[in-house]
Amino acid sequence: MSSTSGCAKTHDTAASLIVVGSIALDTVSTPGMENRKGLGGSATYFSASSGLLCRPQVIAVLGEDFDRGELGFLVERGVDLSTVYTRKGKTFQWQGTYGEELGEATTLRTDLNVFADFEPHLNDAQKNCDFLFLANIIPKLQLKVVEQANAKFVAADTMNLWINTENADLRRVLSKINLLILNEAEAQLLSGKRSIVAAAHEIQSMGPRTVVIKRGVYGAFMLHEERIFLCPAYPTQKVVDPTGCGDTFAGGLMGTLARHGEVSDATLREGMIVGTALASFTIEGYSLDGLKQATVERLRERYAEIESLTKFGPLDM
Amino acid sequence: MSSTSGCAKTHDTAASLIVVGSIALDTVSTPGMENRKGLGGSATYFSASSGLLCRPQVIAVLGEDFDRGELGFLVERGVDLSTVYTRKGKTFQWQGTYGEELGEATTLRTDLNVFADFEPHLNDAQKNCDFLFLANIIPKLQLKVVEQANAKFVAADTMNLWINTENADLRRVLSKINLLILNEAEAQLLSGKRSIVAAAHEIQSMGPRTVVIKRGVYGAFMLHEERIFLCPAYPTQKVVDPTGCGDTFAGGLMGTLARHGEVSDATLREGMIVGTALASFTIEGYSLDGLKQATVERLRERYAEIESLTKFGPLDM
Repeated sequence: MSSTSGCAKTHDTAASLIVVGSIALDTVSTPGMENRKGLGGSATYFSASSGLLCRPQVIAVLGEDFDRGELGFLVERGVDLSTVYTRKGKTFQWQGTYGEELGEATTLRTDLNVFADFEPHLNDAQKNCDFLFLANIIPKLQLKVVEQANAKFVAADTMNLWINTENADLRRVLSKINLLILNEAEAQLLSGKRSIVAAAHEIQSMGPRTVVIKRGVYGAFMLHEERIFLCPAYPTQKVVDPTGCGDTFAGGLMGTLARHGEVSDATLREGMIVGTALASFTIEGYSLDGLKQATVERLRERYAEIESLTKFGPLDM
Repeated sequence: MSSTSGCAKTHDTAASLIVVGSIALDTVSTPGMENRKGLGGSATYFSASSGLLCRPQVIAVLGEDFDRGELGFLVERGVDLSTVYTRKGKTFQWQGTYGEELGEATTLRTDLNVFADFEPHLNDAQKNCDFLFLANIIPKLQLKVVEQANAKFVAADTMNLWINTENADLRRVLSKINLLILNEAEAQLLSGKRSIVAAAHEIQSMGPRTVVIKRGVYGAFMLHEERIFLCPAYPTQKVVDPTGCGDTFAGGLMGTLARHGEVSDATLREGMIVGTALASFTIEGYSLDGLKQATVERLRERYAEIESLTKFGPLDM
């Protein structure tokens, strides 16, 4: 199944994966540095990540100001951009800033532009896709997509804003998906539970059989049916810009599931480690610069490094 | 080497382990509950924990008000209390309170009592012990102990207070020990570094070849020579009182090293998982109530549970 020069065979036999999300121009400031209008957006990071594992298809919208040449590396990676539409107006722009801790970004400005009227429509093939990822967009739109689709496995991301302002729509989304990916503070807010175990069980009772809770530099937590998995973080020494790490992680996870064509405790665990490994490339540069450096070979190395950072023997007594 | 009914064989052949620390009466309040003058103290938790793994010897001091019958369970566990001295006056008392998060305690009151004049002296056998643990006491005293001893492997704990007020003495201690165990905020304060990897390397440059950084519900981090180990936390659902978890963890780690009589990356990793498993009993009750429920058999079960919570397969591509 594998070769170091590429993984076309794996790609061609993998199950289909579709992501609905944004392609954006991000202006990010970190202490002492600003990166203006760099390529960003949830669908961009997700597809750049999952493109190393399968052939994801992107549903997104661009403004007339966007140079499609910027997406050339995605095409080379095998990402299908045939349903990335150009519309009159400007591309979605986001501006955020990070403090010394390089933890959560503070949003300074959001210009939805063409994204404001984004109404994703799935064609017949897309409606019958195997795997579908709903990136962090307003729950009303996530709902429209999931109601069009007949996917085998649907995952979604969300955020504090929607938990607070669009709770009823979000609950409807939750009742229709298989996997929710969110961060620890969001999980606590959504569930009203402080303990991560209790929060995950509470969210599970809202619909998804699998709940993945991201904990930043502390790794991630999964509750899949009755089983818990504790996923480590990669102890990155070169932290440049965390933007996109969550979508990169989701892309690694969903790409692994699509590559195997099977959802099990084993493929989910492998996918979370793959997502962790790929996110560790994203954080090493601004925009997509870090993730562009990731290859299947470098993913293999980093996966093996995470194995060696976490392994321990049986209790010898 | 093992039997389910006990581990006398293992104990008798294990290397020697000595702990210098406190035996105290703790008054702990958690939301909605107060436990008054319960058994506590670093040496108590440490020896109750390591007593499941080897035969630790305690150097500590009690007041005349202390009922030695309270320590009967330690004797049953094989802990040597022959150098726990009774002095005129009252036993060390500590009072602390936890908020809703049950994270770090806030100290409300510390009455050192007989502990104020504690001057630990090692007898000849103790001077030549294999493993020595200096619990969190003023660095000046830790220094006096380490200067008397000719131990093969010395570990120490410390705290923010000493990093701020006794830095020069603490630095002298660090230059003479093999392992420092501290929490993440303390590691950042001591090193001046925010990243855990950078902090551990900085502390290593102060002396200890092994640095273990505790991260509460997020597990623990070890830098041993050039190698990093990421240790998970046990996802406890029954959190009653975190007092003593750090000393329980240290006891599990040092007890494992003494049991093996060998310090290596493998025994350190096994010891950290043992420490994590034993601390998960401590947190389930007030005072020593949780840890008293731990047995070798229950330790084995929890160790295996941590294995299943963290294991993942190789990258299948």
